[in-house]
Amino acid sequence: MTHTLQDCRARDAADPLRPLRDLFVLPEGVVYLDGNSLGPLPKAVAARVARAVEHEWGQGLIRSWNTAGWYELPRRVGDRIGGWIGAAPGETVATDTTSINLYKVLAAALSIAAQDQPARKVVLSERSNFPTDLYIAQALCEDRGFQLRLLETAEIEAALAADTAVLMLTHVNYRTGAMHDMARLTALAHQHGALAVWDLAHSAGAVPVDLNAADADFAVGCGYKYFNGGPGSPAFAWVHPRHADRFRQPLAGWWSHAAPFEFTPDYRPASGIARYLCGTQPVLSMVALDAGLDAIDASRPLGGIQALRRKSLALTDCFIELVEQRCAGHGLSLVTPREHALRGSQVCLARAEGAYAIVQALIARGVIGDFRAPDILRFGCTPLYLGFEDVWNAVEHLRQVLDSGEWRRPEYNRANAVT
Amino acid sequence: MTHTLQDCRARDAADPLRPLRDLFVLPEGVVYLDGNSLGPLPKAVAARVARAVEHEWGQGLIRSWNTAGWYELPRRVGDRIGGWIGAAPGETVATDTTSINLYKVLAAALSIAAQDQPARKVVLSERSNFPTDLYIAQALCEDRGFQLRLLETAEIEAALAADTAVLMLTHVNYRTGAMHDMARLTALAHQHGALAVWDLAHSAGAVPVDLNAADADFAVGCGYKYFNGGPGSPAFAWVHPRHADRFRQPLAGWWSHAAPFEFTPDYRPASGIARYLCGTQPVLSMVALDAGLDAIDASRPLGGIQALRRKSLALTDCFIELVEQRCAGHGLSLVTPREHALRGSQVCLARAEGAYAIVQALIARGVIGDFRAPDILRFGCTPLYLGFEDVWNAVEHLRQVLDSGEWRRPEYNRANAVT
Repeated sequence: MTHTLQDCRARDAADPLRPLRDLFVLPEGVVYLDGNSLGPLPKAVAARVARAVEHEWGQGLIRSWNTAGWYELPRRVGDRIGGWIGAAPGETVATDTTSINLYKVLAAALSIAAQDQPARKVVLSERSNFPTDLYIAQALCEDRGFQLRLLETAEIEAALAADTAVLMLTHVNYRTGAMHDMARLTALAHQHGALAVWDLAHSAGAVPVDLNAADADFAVGCGYKYFNGGPGSPAFAWVHPRHADRFRQPLAGWWSHAAPFEFTPDYRPASGIARYLCGTQPVLSMVALDAGLDAIDASRPLGGIQALRRKSLALTDCFIELVEQRCAGHGLSLVTPREHALRGSQVCLARAEGAYAIVQALIARGVIGDFRAPDILRFGCTPLYLGFEDVWNAVEHLRQVLDSGEWRRPEYNRANAVT
Repeated sequence: MTHTLQDCRARDAADPLRPLRDLFVLPEGVVYLDGNSLGPLPKAVAARVARAVEHEWGQGLIRSWNTAGWYELPRRVGDRIGGWIGAAPGETVATDTTSINLYKVLAAALSIAAQDQPARKVVLSERSNFPTDLYIAQALCEDRGFQLRLLETAEIEAALAADTAVLMLTHVNYRTGAMHDMARLTALAHQHGALAVWDLAHSAGAVPVDLNAADADFAVGCGYKYFNGGPGSPAFAWVHPRHADRFRQPLAGWWSHAAPFEFTPDYRPASGIARYLCGTQPVLSMVALDAGLDAIDASRPLGGIQALRRKSLALTDCFIELVEQRCAGHGLSLVTPREHALRGSQVCLARAEGAYAIVQALIARGVIGDFRAPDILRFGCTPLYLGFEDVWNAVEHLRQVLDSGEWRRPEYNRANAVT
């Protein structure tokens, strides 16, 4: 399909999700294709955070732990996130960071494996998984006497075996945008007697996720990408109810105690998902996440995740086709899968030379995407606030940057980068 | 010494630290004696947080990780805290929660002990330590084959022995306000071949702390108490340089990697204190802590921690003497040590009956202190913003609550509490 600027404008005019764009601050002159790294500011967040600072903290002081509901935030916000990932109420907590939550759930998974099937000593993952997942798994495996085996994507199914304790995968790959079939891989893992741990960093809020329907065992993910919770906002952890009460996770701080305000010297774990809390949470960042979730929740009456998914696929299709039509001959290759069932909500292109510099030249023009080493240009297409004209403009800038060779300017060279 | 309201007012008028009070929001009609649980809002914080939300996040978007210095916050804020605990630059990070940081440093301490002195298998602590410290230690000891031995305070010195791997203590006790001699106990631990891990939650920013002079091994503490960083603001971790590069801590997330943006599948730990980071930090809460530190830093030209300590001791002396003069015969007993060298920055009273209800009756009158199970009334005396007239008013309210018996009203009964 050939796209024109006029077509793109017409599609925006006909888009039922278009009003959601007005819920966000989108700076003039910016096409924001990095919502998969940090979602933009929902307009309502500033007032909510100001109220938390000035009224709840300033006037309520310590009393606000009760009167402003601060204590309930991890579970209440967790349940709100749970509604986007196929979790029932009481199965999800918003807390800590994705890395730390992965440590908790993987430690629990290894404990269960060690008890139920002590001969299984292998954790399988992908070499292309987000590195922090691999670092956390590496450290835990060393400490617990397990072996972390890293695979290419195509090797996963054949590698599941009688020695597999846990299959630990990220649902949508951060570098390529490729998406796994969660239900199928979870079922395969279970058939082989292994547990399935999922990182939803690049899929929660972006694509349909149904953890209970997939019968997953554990999951973690981010608050600051598709949930627009703000820089470094708390992450989340989900545990299937069949596992929640089985093991204490190792970060057994007082918020995971059955009665934290009894201040007893002996640890007695809370039942359910509260066991996956640890210490006192950053309330201001948690409040921003709570308010940020209002923006994605506003899509529910417009069709929710199914409508978002339809638009996301239309946006990424349009992006891919425009690049092929207008940037041909410039050495770009598509990394993200063409097949819808295998694609997340981003378009990744590879280029043997200059990927870093091209992204910098685009950012200088207000088209904000991401470089991912060694050769990837990554463009997140978030349907909550992006339109088809944005996609047209982004690809037009990319064409101009390539046609003009302006990406060769010294200021865009990676060797000259300050960070 | 007999105090009158006039004396107290005169002492406030002569107090060189008095101008610092104007840096804080202190609600009308409130005497705030709970800054050791949540410091009050410094006036400058609201604007700083609003700038982070509206300008840095809203306009800068993902670029603010570099342009607004978000990446540097954990180390920059850590160094600011380091200046209040006797740390050199580069030895402290602000990150995660106190519970999680204790897990990191205690895990590192156990690794060092296991390598250097494998026969040592005991971690000593106090039964009266803050429970989360004990829960974290209990979990780690179980996982690593160590034994946690809990002692009464008077038993600590005699318990140090050839099997002691780590002495883990909280510098100022949360329930009693009693303070340990950090230098002496650290030296004793070292003489017995053990490492010393200190929790500074109730001492950092409240009393002089000099980790390097004491030759401590590891330390952690809070941002939201005496540093006024806001509800659940990030905590901190300090590691003596002799240990920093020796072991990876188990929460080996990407922020602890030597080159996180190379996205390599293999973990290579950063050197120095950066190794004690893990995942992406809650920027809005971190920014509030950064701005909150300005308030305590404003005391430096007025004498800094020595001036704060002098005033803190004068406030707590005054509190104790007023209680003895004006609340005699009401069954209150002093729990906090009378001896200055053994006292933190709080006054704790015990009462066999009604401690919870008395604290509730005081809160209803605007005198905000804390109940700590089973029988403690806890009053934090923070010299940055409290005056002698505040102390006089607090004790006067306490006298009235006791004389009138109003604490016996049903709404103050613990059995009727909603939380």
